[in-house]
Amino acid sequence: MAPLKLLCMPLSTCTKRVIALLEELQVPYEVVTIDLTKGEQKRPEYVKLQPFGKIPVLEDPDTGITIFESRSILRYLANKYQDKAGSLVGTDAKSRALVDNWLEAEGQNFNPPAGNIVFERVFKAWRGQAADEAAVQKELPKLEAVLDAYETILAQRPYLAGDDFSIADLSHLPYLSLLMTAAGVSDPVNKRPHVKAWWDRISSRPTWQKVSQMK
Amino acid sequence: MAPLKLLCMPLSTCTKRVIALLEELQVPYEVVTIDLTKGEQKRPEYVKLQPFGKIPVLEDPDTGITIFESRSILRYLANKYQDKAGSLVGTDAKSRALVDNWLEAEGQNFNPPAGNIVFERVFKAWRGQAADEAAVQKELPKLEAVLDAYETILAQRPYLAGDDFSIADLSHLPYLSLLMTAAGVSDPVNKRPHVKAWWDRISSRPTWQKVSQMK
Ligand SMILES: N[C@@H](CCC(=O)N[C@@H](CS)C(=O)NCC(=O)O)C(=O)O
Ligand SMILES: N[C@@H](CCC(=O)N[C@@H](CS)C(=O)NCC(=O)O)C(=O)O
Repeated sequence: MAPLKLLCMPLSTCTKRVIALLEELQVPYEVVTIDLTKGEQKRPEYVKLQPFGKIPVLEDPDTGITIFESRSILRYLANKYQDKAGSLVGTDAKSRALVDNWLEAEGQNFNPPAGNIVFERVFKAWRGQAADEAAVQKELPKLEAVLDAYETILAQRPYLAGDDFSIADLSHLPYLSLLMTAAGVSDPVNKRPHVKAWWDRISSRPTWQKVSQMK
Repeated sequence: MAPLKLLCMPLSTCTKRVIALLEELQVPYEVVTIDLTKGEQKRPEYVKLQPFGKIPVLEDPDTGITIFESRSILRYLANKYQDKAGSLVGTDAKSRALVDNWLEAEGQNFNPPAGNIVFERVFKAWRGQAADEAAVQKELPKLEAVLDAYETILAQRPYLAGDDFSIADLSHLPYLSLLMTAAGVSDPVNKRPHVKAWWDRISSRPTWQKVSQMK
């Protein structure tokens, strides 16, 4: 089995989402750097693989499959390595449906406000630009509303999809980490006890401790 | 087999996404109306099923599974009725990965600008409110960039994920229809010949002709 190839930049949030799963699964992979600071994601050879000119892309030499969209890559890997993945993807029809439901909820509900706030407060700072604070203030109530829903769910069970950590929880780690640290938006998490306990549980995983440091 | 129950409002875009698949699959289902004009989506009994207070929700009496998020419902149905679904969801690892990839691309790339424009130009008009045209003008270039990527892909194959119509194409129908009609944004489609030919192919399906009329 040739190692999987991930065309990406390990500093980026969408890349960390995929690497976190690769590390959980302990599957051999190789990083092929696409340097966003040099605009390599817009080069014609790369855009043939990812028509929107974004990272990451996964190439699987075993199957000849090339896919993009970080959450699709999560589903692909979790299905390919189903035995290793276990409760990460769900072990029966019901748990699989719930994991998929909450992964989709992350992508549709949590990611837009979280991504917009992190873009303003963190990614702009990396480029020496100032945050548009009016934009941040518009996104914060949307994030709070999402976390209200999470608080209700997490009062009933330790992880979003049930009793076990899954790719639905994992998918939150890259943006939630930056919100809690560099973006200075820890209050919405800290003031909701069940969300806070969940954050402590998911962020203390050894795999995430490793992946969050990658540059 | 008891019929599936869809808690929804057939006029809504997220509902039409699911009903379009139910009609393609010819699976018996029952509509339980959640009336958004009466705020029924925020009632406590409903919020227990959908913690964000949005439609639709699917209840499957056969399996006892209840799920939300329209695209997760598509995946659930396509997997449950895999034999009927065939190329709608993909018939081997490669086509399944590609369908999932393009369904996710719809949700992440197409849906945000399309949804925002339709919200301003159509949903606000339904409530007698004026569109924020500055917001529309901010979203249009994002929509155009997405359609540029689609034009490249659709020059190579008739449907986003390959040779066959799939849930990835289907998922575009609700918002794309409103863009082409009530929102007055047909130009970005019409000026891209491969996108236009794809739109003609997917919107002329008898199932969509039926679902688009539902109120
Ligand atoms: N929905 C995509 C988003 C990918 C994305 O936005 N990637 C960012 C890095 S986190 C990127 O490539 N940005 C550079 C660009 O847009 O030019 C996914 O989840 O894979
Ligand atoms: N990502 C969700 C979005 C659901 C959604 O936005 N539903 C709208 C109707 S299309 C709704 O219920 N709006 C009423 C509200 O937000 O109060 C899905 O795809 O199911």
